Amino acid sequence: MAKKLESHQNKVFKRVKGFSQKKNRDKEGVFVAEGLRFVSEIPNNWEVELFVVSQDFAGENDLGQYEDRADTYLLTNELFSLLSDTENPQGILAVCKKQKECQEAIWKKDAPFLVLAEELNDPGNLGTVIRTADAAGADGIFLSKGSVDVYNPKVLRATMGSIFHIPVYQNISLEEIAWKMQENQISLYAAHLKGDCYPYELPLEKGCGFLIGNEARGLSDEAAELCNRWAKIPMPGKAESLNASIAAGVLMYEIVRQRLK
Amino acid sequence: MAKKLESHQNKVFKRVKGFSQKKNRDKEGVFVAEGLRFVSEIPNNWEVELFVVSQDFAGENDLGQYEDRADTYLLTNELFSLLSDTENPQGILAVCKKQKECQEAIWKKDAPFLVLAEELNDPGNLGTVIRTADAAGADGIFLSKGSVDVYNPKVLRATMGSIFHIPVYQNISLEEIAWKMQENQISLYAAHLKGDCYPYELPLEKGCGFLIGNEARGLSDEAAELCNRWAKIPMPGKAESLNASIAAGVLMYEIVRQRLK
Repeated sequence: MAKKLESHQNKVFKRVKGFSQKKNRDKEGVFVAEGLRFVSEIPNNWEVELFVVSQDFAGENDLGQYEDRADTYLLTNELFSLLSDTENPQGILAVCKKQKECQEAIWKKDAPFLVLAEELNDPGNLGTVIRTADAAGADGIFLSKGSVDVYNPKVLRATMGSIFHIPVYQNISLEEIAWKMQENQISLYAAHLKGDCYPYELPLEKGCGFLIGNEARGLSDEAAELCNRWAKIPMPGKAESLNASIAAGVLMYEIVRQRLK
Repeated sequence: MAKKLESHQNKVFKRVKGFSQKKNRDKEGVFVAEGLRFVSEIPNNWEVELFVVSQDFAGENDLGQYEDRADTYLLTNELFSLLSDTENPQGILAVCKKQKECQEAIWKKDAPFLVLAEELNDPGNLGTVIRTADAAGADGIFLSKGSVDVYNPKVLRATMGSIFHIPVYQNISLEEIAWKMQENQISLYAAHLKGDCYPYELPLEKGCGFLIGNEARGLSDEAAELCNRWAKIPMPGKAESLNASIAAGVLMYEIVRQRLK
């Protein structure tokens, strides 16, 4: 049976409310998945700490599947909207354990396809990059220090559930990962205005990764130097650059195209 | 000399303030380009009605180039921030005439590259699609009724100035444009889950266009029926769909790739 919470002084309410802050999510190693679609994307073997639903949601949905899986709390609509990150809450959220941070499986893959990013700051961009990497079949995403937190609600929303499908490693040292890639014969490429070829000419059927720069500043010189080769995304029109998530999408889909053959 | 405005009762202030609403922009056929980078993208032959700058901006920049071109108004920082659409205004905006809506040049092109969209609703997505189409060298963008206004400040910001480079036609009938394309031997394609080929197999060196669907609902059946062929964007990973602007970017860049040869 769902437990009713009717006061914003309640401990569980306060705890979940606290997860809007990164430091509280980090302390407990959890994040909040909000909305019916997002919650329905949670895989069966994923650890869920608890569910929270609103009165309206409980009136229209059978709570059995949630109650069977984890503690389920029933809140007044008003209390629920205080927990929600959206203007029109759907009335359900789940507190989930974060991904495990084990990299070993990545390095054992044959011809892995990796995505690295340096200080990606815009939550929508990061979420979209994760969703695209998931669609394209990438094996992992590595985010440098200074990137927006992947468990930020806006990032999670833009992933459309892909956070449950693809490993994302945060606060990594690009230098260490580049070194690890070198060791494993995985080439690192980046889109760069000074690139000497188009992405279409790179041998992407082999193990490889693309390094994406910050939205405003692009790649730092230090990060660019870590790459095996720079490619130039052709821009036959008048715009001088692409949005970071679009550039990442074009590069990732060139890997997909080459590997289809 | 810049004219000083110090009251929010002033007519010019009130007029510019009004342009945050679509109906006022439409009535006068203008839009607001805000920020130094955006203003610096205005081509020399583009009609500018007036410039507005803040005290701080005037203190740090030579206003000559603006004053020579159009009436320039100097506002207190507080008044300027009331006109601004951003949290940290840079202190300059221009009221520009909208694009002229002449389609004729498009139909006279050899092998044009067009982008059509059905009810694209998210301002960031639409702006990004325009920026990508501009980078990819597309010849024009056609937006169906029910799309977000291209002169909405959030759309403009995401275009990064591409609104000055590529014609965008709004409130069009997809049926009429599809008919016009047919007449001119321009094929219309769409990404569709039921597609019978990958985009890589389409003959995109010929005149062609891609039709993009709404973010949440995808393409309507009526719109999908207007296409000559449906292509499937491969998704070897676990995500079931791509963000609309990413899908559009992947398709547009397949045109770029094929036309590079």
